[in-house]
Amino acid sequence: MLKQITGGVCAAQGFRAAGLHVGVKTHNVNKKDVALIVSDTDCAAAAVFTKNVVKAAPIHVTKAHLADGRARAVIANSGNANACAPGGEENARRMCEAAAAVIGCRAEDVLVASTGVIGQPLNIKVIEDGAQELYNRLERSDAASDIAAHAIMTTDTVKKEAAVETTVGGKTVRMGGIAKGSGMIHPNMGTMLCFITTDCAISSAMIREALQETVRVSFNRISVDGDTSTNDTCCVLANGMAGNAEITEKNEDYDAFVAALRELCVQLARKMAKDGEGAIHLMTCTVQGARDEAQAETISKSVISSTLTKAAIFGCDANWGRVLCAMGYSGESFDPEKVDVRFASAAGTVLVCEQGRGLAFDEELAKKILTEDEIVIDVAMGEGNGACTCWGCDITYDYIKINGDYRT
Amino acid sequence: MLKQITGGVCAAQGFRAAGLHVGVKTHNVNKKDVALIVSDTDCAAAAVFTKNVVKAAPIHVTKAHLADGRARAVIANSGNANACAPGGEENARRMCEAAAAVIGCRAEDVLVASTGVIGQPLNIKVIEDGAQELYNRLERSDAASDIAAHAIMTTDTVKKEAAVETTVGGKTVRMGGIAKGSGMIHPNMGTMLCFITTDCAISSAMIREALQETVRVSFNRISVDGDTSTNDTCCVLANGMAGNAEITEKNEDYDAFVAALRELCVQLARKMAKDGEGAIHLMTCTVQGARDEAQAETISKSVISSTLTKAAIFGCDANWGRVLCAMGYSGESFDPEKVDVRFASAAGTVLVCEQGRGLAFDEELAKKILTEDEIVIDVAMGEGNGACTCWGCDITYDYIKINGDYRT
Repeated sequence: MLKQITGGVCAAQGFRAAGLHVGVKTHNVNKKDVALIVSDTDCAAAAVFTKNVVKAAPIHVTKAHLADGRARAVIANSGNANACAPGGEENARRMCEAAAAVIGCRAEDVLVASTGVIGQPLNIKVIEDGAQELYNRLERSDAASDIAAHAIMTTDTVKKEAAVETTVGGKTVRMGGIAKGSGMIHPNMGTMLCFITTDCAISSAMIREALQETVRVSFNRISVDGDTSTNDTCCVLANGMAGNAEITEKNEDYDAFVAALRELCVQLARKMAKDGEGAIHLMTCTVQGARDEAQAETISKSVISSTLTKAAIFGCDANWGRVLCAMGYSGESFDPEKVDVRFASAAGTVLVCEQGRGLAFDEELAKKILTEDEIVIDVAMGEGNGACTCWGCDITYDYIKINGDYRT
Repeated sequence: MLKQITGGVCAAQGFRAAGLHVGVKTHNVNKKDVALIVSDTDCAAAAVFTKNVVKAAPIHVTKAHLADGRARAVIANSGNANACAPGGEENARRMCEAAAAVIGCRAEDVLVASTGVIGQPLNIKVIEDGAQELYNRLERSDAASDIAAHAIMTTDTVKKEAAVETTVGGKTVRMGGIAKGSGMIHPNMGTMLCFITTDCAISSAMIREALQETVRVSFNRISVDGDTSTNDTCCVLANGMAGNAEITEKNEDYDAFVAALRELCVQLARKMAKDGEGAIHLMTCTVQGARDEAQAETISKSVISSTLTKAAIFGCDANWGRVLCAMGYSGESFDPEKVDVRFASAAGTVLVCEQGRGLAFDEELAKKILTEDEIVIDVAMGEGNGACTCWGCDITYDYIKINGDYRT
């Protein structure tokens, strides 16, 4: 039913994208720093934002522009977060106005996002000067989505892009997204931006519902470094060009929409965790047998966020004691003597702890398992039927290197 | 009034200490792995422990032995945490019995603690075999305390030892301690052990009160890596040999005792933070002008625990945006536009953020300030009179190195 397709943010009908270097990033003219995504027609739209008390200026502006649940376009820059910076809100509004002028729409129908260094004034002039050229490059193609995905990258080493096709109300619906996020990533949104487009016909109220439901089980279940950023934004634009009957309530069509959105968001979230700053391993923690899903989630997040567990995974060291330790300080109460821990990857599975006690396991096999790119820490708690999966990454020398001198 | 003295855990009258290599640590025979502290007479005693749900076996045994508020001795090993390990409680009890046999006291009057790798069986035999030799080496001297302090070290690079002298009820009272802790350190106790001895006469109920009050503002305000360990223990033994009238209620004498204990614990806590695994800088965060102390504490802890702030301090980078960001996700609500941030050290002070907005500050001066060993991040919130100081350290390549392959 659900099919993987290409095209990212241009996969859905009626969406074009572009990316350009305009000069926000001053140190490298080859790095694109502004992205634009435009729908041919008016869209229903909704977004979720960071829970950080310190919010970047574009978040306030985008929130205001979404008050009517409608949007036409998204403009985003990398290289500067426009957070805690002089003139922040004015600059965010000017970004929307610059985009609106070239598109020929109202500034209120443009959403805006920024990512990069906090606390430095945004060079709005270069964005305004580049807006027309950015517009001229708009295209609906795999290449255009790829360029836009690159234009929102900061310390990301790979672009994050995905798209799916499904059927809603008998019509083929496409949905695709681009995302960025590498450092300052933590459950409850990291420094992440994610822009999703779809040709599904759906009301903005239903998008909001679907987005909240989906973000909870995707982006809110990843962690790179425990730092929740000031700029996180995930928005969905739906232009209705697929021709399905508009989704306005929680019915079968809504479920199909949520299933597609969930698949898309989980794919993008995994890509973010895997590309965590300096990361070598994607670290997945599956918790089963918890009292309920909430307990499983708290414990799984505690494991993927544990600096010591992350360091052990970097060292390919089957140090399961740190897993149990992180479970123990999660804030959840449970019986440690019912806990089993396994490490798994493409190379196999090894049970290292049974009923809370260490086993004499095959260290050579464990090493082989942990040398793979994608590692699963599989925890069975023996208390109930609650389960949850969260994603993180190891902490490495490169994480320190990247973040020891990020501003310069 | 309060005087710094030498002698650590042997500073108080009637306390002897020793350390020895018995073979718990198998990889290096030069590393001592068992410490013994013995009072000549029966002591009033109390302890606080980790809040981790997964607790090491010695914690259960020490708790039981402290039920009557009395103790004679402490035995502790490094190299193995005796947590999640087969036969844990039996081995912890056998450690107490081995010490009691050579001291000539009841096993119930011996407290026990362990630190090291989680999940591997403790080699209790070598500890039992070494007990007599350990006892033979007991001494009351600066050197003996130094050896005991070394015997509880794991990844610590320096011993942690301090002692103070004060006056209680007209009598000279001495108090000293040894501690260990370097990784798995987080507010609410890290992987830390701390043994404090005093010749003050004080009831175990009053020690318990004083210890809780003091730990809250010392060990619970440091963080190295956000991981709270399974083994944390801080205990105080008071043998009354100073001859003061026993403290049994909260009076002037109690206040003098708490002042001394607080000074001692803050000194030891700072030493732990400064010797955080791989750390180069001691990072102190002072928050002033908060609504109340609780808000100041939450915010200060969030800053010293922020991986990105720690990485910036490692890079001597005045990246104050990360400080504001960490304040923002602390869970406290406040007005970011009232916040000032300064970086300070022996080399000077620089205001980098005023009223929530970045300033064009002297980058050269900032670099010079941040190159010092001890850095202060000074936050003024402009909301009230609440203040709090917490201590942490930077995160470095060596932290990753130390923890990437700790078990081998």
